[in-house]
Amino acid sequence: MDPITIIGLTIALATTFLASFMSGMNPIVIFFSSPSSIILVVGGAIGATAASGTMDQFIAFPKGLIKAFMGGPGEDPAITIKLMVDFADVARKEGLLALEERFDEINDPFFRNGLELAVDGTDPDELREMLELDVFKMQGRHKSGAAFYATCAGYGPAFGMVGTVIGLVDMLGKLDDPSTLGPSMAVAFLTTLWGAFIANYFFTPISSRLRKLSELEVASRELMIEGILAIQAGSNPRNVAGKLVSFLPPSRREEILGEKSA
Amino acid sequence: MDPITIIGLTIALATTFLASFMSGMNPIVIFFSSPSSIILVVGGAIGATAASGTMDQFIAFPKGLIKAFMGGPGEDPAITIKLMVDFADVARKEGLLALEERFDEINDPFFRNGLELAVDGTDPDELREMLELDVFKMQGRHKSGAAFYATCAGYGPAFGMVGTVIGLVDMLGKLDDPSTLGPSMAVAFLTTLWGAFIANYFFTPISSRLRKLSELEVASRELMIEGILAIQAGSNPRNVAGKLVSFLPPSRREEILGEKSA
Amino acid sequence: MDPITIIGLTIALATTFLASFMSGMNPIVIFFSSPSSIILVVGGAIGATAASGTMDQFIAFPKGLIKAFMGGPGEDPAITIKLMVDFADVARKEGLLALEERFDEINDPFFRNGLELAVDGTDPDELREMLELDVFKMQGRHKSGAAFYATCAGYGPAFGMVGTVIGLVDMLGKLDDPSTLGPSMAVAFLTTLWGAFIANYFFTPISSRLRKLSELEVASRELMIEGILAIQAGSNPRNVAGKLVSFLPPSRREEILGEKSA
Amino acid sequence: MDPITIIGLTIALATTFLASFMSGMNPIVIFFSSPSSIILVVGGAIGATAASGTMDQFIAFPKGLIKAFMGGPGEDPAITIKLMVDFADVARKEGLLALEERFDEINDPFFRNGLELAVDGTDPDELREMLELDVFKMQGRHKSGAAFYATCAGYGPAFGMVGTVIGLVDMLGKLDDPSTLGPSMAVAFLTTLWGAFIANYFFTPISSRLRKLSELEVASRELMIEGILAIQAGSNPRNVAGKLVSFLPPSRREEILGEKSA
Amino acid sequence: MDPITIIGLTIALATTFLASFMSGMNPIVIFFSSPSSIILVVGGAIGATAASGTMDQFIAFPKGLIKAFMGGPGEDPAITIKLMVDFADVARKEGLLALEERFDEINDPFFRNGLELAVDGTDPDELREMLELDVFKMQGRHKSGAAFYATCAGYGPAFGMVGTVIGLVDMLGKLDDPSTLGPSMAVAFLTTLWGAFIANYFFTPISSRLRKLSELEVASRELMIEGILAIQAGSNPRNVAGKLVSFLPPSRREEILGEKSA
Repeated sequence: MDPITIIGLTIALATTFLASFMSGMNPIVIFFSSPSSIILVVGGAIGATAASGTMDQFIAFPKGLIKAFMGGPGEDPAITIKLMVDFADVARKEGLLALEERFDEINDPFFRNGLELAVDGTDPDELREMLELDVFKMQGRHKSGAAFYATCAGYGPAFGMVGTVIGLVDMLGKLDDPSTLGPSMAVAFLTTLWGAFIANYFFTPISSRLRKLSELEVASRELMIEGILAIQAGSNPRNVAGKLVSFLPPSRREEILGEKSA
Repeated sequence: MDPITIIGLTIALATTFLASFMSGMNPIVIFFSSPSSIILVVGGAIGATAASGTMDQFIAFPKGLIKAFMGGPGEDPAITIKLMVDFADVARKEGLLALEERFDEINDPFFRNGLELAVDGTDPDELREMLELDVFKMQGRHKSGAAFYATCAGYGPAFGMVGTVIGLVDMLGKLDDPSTLGPSMAVAFLTTLWGAFIANYFFTPISSRLRKLSELEVASRELMIEGILAIQAGSNPRNVAGKLVSFLPPSRREEILGEKSA
Repeated sequence: MDPITIIGLTIALATTFLASFMSGMNPIVIFFSSPSSIILVVGGAIGATAASGTMDQFIAFPKGLIKAFMGGPGEDPAITIKLMVDFADVARKEGLLALEERFDEINDPFFRNGLELAVDGTDPDELREMLELDVFKMQGRHKSGAAFYATCAGYGPAFGMVGTVIGLVDMLGKLDDPSTLGPSMAVAFLTTLWGAFIANYFFTPISSRLRKLSELEVASRELMIEGILAIQAGSNPRNVAGKLVSFLPPSRREEILGEKSA
Repeated sequence: MDPITIIGLTIALATTFLASFMSGMNPIVIFFSSPSSIILVVGGAIGATAASGTMDQFIAFPKGLIKAFMGGPGEDPAITIKLMVDFADVARKEGLLALEERFDEINDPFFRNGLELAVDGTDPDELREMLELDVFKMQGRHKSGAAFYATCAGYGPAFGMVGTVIGLVDMLGKLDDPSTLGPSMAVAFLTTLWGAFIANYFFTPISSRLRKLSELEVASRELMIEGILAIQAGSNPRNVAGKLVSFLPPSRREEILGEKSA
Repeated sequence: MDPITIIGLTIALATTFLASFMSGMNPIVIFFSSPSSIILVVGGAIGATAASGTMDQFIAFPKGLIKAFMGGPGEDPAITIKLMVDFADVARKEGLLALEERFDEINDPFFRNGLELAVDGTDPDELREMLELDVFKMQGRHKSGAAFYATCAGYGPAFGMVGTVIGLVDMLGKLDDPSTLGPSMAVAFLTTLWGAFIANYFFTPISSRLRKLSELEVASRELMIEGILAIQAGSNPRNVAGKLVSFLPPSRREEILGEKSA
């Protein structure tokens, strides 16, 4: 689990509250002074987003939130690379079948499943095609999931604007008492505020976070595909290491290459 | 049929109405207080959208709406996969021609047509090319259809703005009686409201929904293409299952693979 | 000719005028009350668009307008397909050269030229490459033409805003007589109105329409390329029909396939 | 040289000035009434753009301007095609080496260099690869150059807004004398005006113009590559003409094909 | 190091300050008059950006800033090309192994590593694939880094707007004393100002700069890949020079080609 999403959103909220208090306002009072603004913005954004997709996507709504908050970048690629170099060594010395005993060391089901297929003698081209199709389809599911929250983030300010215009129209239509002008406008603008709030403090970061996690998961599986195929091909462990380090930033390559040359 | 579009739009409208009532406004009165705003925005958006396309697209306008509301994600891919694995089994044991008796079990015309061509002995490469061209062309038709509603959604706020500016120019030109200022501005802003309304409560969700349904239909047909070609090639049913499960999220793969390994 | 562009723009204009009259305004008076606004917006948008391209593009400006208004989606693809299936039949039975007598039945110069090259015995791969290059270059010319009107549409609101700001700056600088405030602002906003007007009632629909017509023309030529090459290859007319129907929506395929199987 | 950029920008400026005079304003007085607005907008836009790139790009800044104003669409492709068809004729009849005497007729260094390499017997695949890499790299340089002015155009309104907000904050902070309100706001809005001015009357058209010129230069070189390779391959001049006319709009093809068939 | 980022941002800041002083304002007083605005905008933008990515990205935040300010376009490609042409000469005359003595002349680790692999006899196709994968992965890391600052730049104005709306809502809610209206609005707009400030004077230029530096580094490595493979293949130094000069603008090619032909 990578707590940065919780930390980041807490920083954003806390500094907003702190700034409000410093200016002599009570942010709780301001934000919650008009429940109807919250209902209009949240109801509109959720409703329009739901209408934009399918029932399945709507039901999966909370799952994405949990993943964004509780998920993380997954296993360090350096660990995966080390395991693969090690497996390549075993495969070279003792044959592919000797890897069967070590399947339990693999946590990732994609890696394990791919290696099993490789050891079972699946044709390399077919194996690559199958694994790449799997990653491609996963990428599609992730993209569609992240887009759902981005859609919701986009509807936030739109419904905020709708609510504010409704409020202004109502207010301007009955301008008999100028003293109510200010408070009426304040209420109207609260809808704009809530629209910007759900977009910037919640749905936009969630959507970006899910896209980033997907990017990392795709990279991790591409690394596994390259490794599995190299192991199956019986490549020299040093060459396997040399190729897979491309998936690491240069500053961390020594961890892999240093060990090998030692 | 997937009722989420009706449900979602109902939620968006209902919460807007509820919020208005809670703030002491009558949303019906507000929304319908200026028929001219509705005429300008709806007429402008429909007219400009019609001008942006062809007569055929304009005539097909209601068809897309019906599809967005009444359509759905289609048959569960797991069912299609199971049928295909079953067919692969038959084809392997009794030959391709034995599948002819089972054509009536296939509901999807694309699947049925493709399988007929496969059983008729069409060359695999040619068959793939034909089926992929069909999907590609369908995708183009869907894209063009969804874009039509997106265009309409874009014109909504644009004509809302035009109407509001016309109202403001008229109002500012005859500022003799300040007491009419408020109501005049209210009427002017109603056009903005209607522009935002048709975009956010209707055309944008419709367009996104059509794009999503298209995405699902394309994925479903890509699955069928892979399956048909695997059946024609006489692949092992287990391999067919192993490949096609990529089209399902991991959590549902057991349904297919579990059965097979049993 | 497809009258939808004229019809659509007429609807947009007519409803705007109707709505204005219903609100007690005279739209002609409002729109034409400040000739300087029209000069600034139209002059600015045309000038900046001209500066963004080449002299050739500027000279071709009216040609695109004529095409958008007077052009149309071209011949029904079903007619082209029927002719091609017929030609495939002739080519199979009487040889490619027998088609020479029927060249005059072909209206489209691209189709005729392509078929002539096919009958002359041009190498199929070279023929496909030549025809595809031709379509690709046509697509480029169309895209560049449509982009010109889109650029113009984009400059509309930009110069509208420039004119309004000039008006506001002038007005605010000599605020001695508050009674002139309203009318001055009205004039300033007229520039915004004209900017939005030329964009939404004219240039944006024109640009979208040209893109749509181009899309249809490209699809029509891709259909011709597939057909010409299938005829040259001496394909079975039934297979030619089976492949080319992908260019039609499913609801219209019976027209072609029904006839053939009859 | 193609004077359309100078003509277009002159039209845009002249109509703005005319419109201002017609409305009883002196545009020179308005535009130059606040030198600080000009300094803030121009300084901010140039500074931020410089910071966005490299020193080399900054130094090349004036070069792009000169190209946008003084450059043009280059030689008419019809002339290039005629020369190439002529060269193909010579190469066929007298051999490739006979072209050496005619190198001086070629103005374009890319064409000349490519033809020299072709005559020197460079391998066709390698030659194509070299020439395409050259075009690809040129395209990259052009794109990066045009993007620089687009960046500058984007910063214009951004710094205009910054200056206006600074002005408003200052003005609102010392609201003791309401009579200064108007003039202060006028000055604040001048920054918005200058931001929109440098973007719409200058940097955006320049950037679009450079992109268009690049597009034409790329197309011209692609034409040369096809021609050079066809000449080297000893193609029939009629086929060379038939293929290269794709680079011309249909209305101009007769110029090439008519001559040939004569 | 390329000081243009520091110079550019200094110009942008200095002209803003100069313009403020010229208008009789003290920019320091204005910008720092409301610490709460700074806290809200900076806290919100950093917090929401952090939540959008991973902990690793957040920790690497300062590294990108240092690179943007202190980094530069790297070694002049002409120098790299000259070295490569020289190496190609050596490899041709004395064999690939003779290059080992000259490895120390190479500063760039990517170049050196690639040449070592080439000299070690790595298969050319595999070598190209390895080096291209390395560049592709580097490009991905750079893109993700630059996107982080662009995200931050996008949140700047968003949180500026949130803060301004909070301020307006608070102010409008307690409109008893009109004399405080101006100063309250001034404070509310300061948040807008800070949002625009961090975006336009800092994060947007930083993000563009990082993208530009990445583009140059990718081009530099693509040049190295072409050179290394040409050297390994024992190409003629003149051909190596002829191909690699595509990476230079035409005006600088004489430096390479002139020398060679001399």
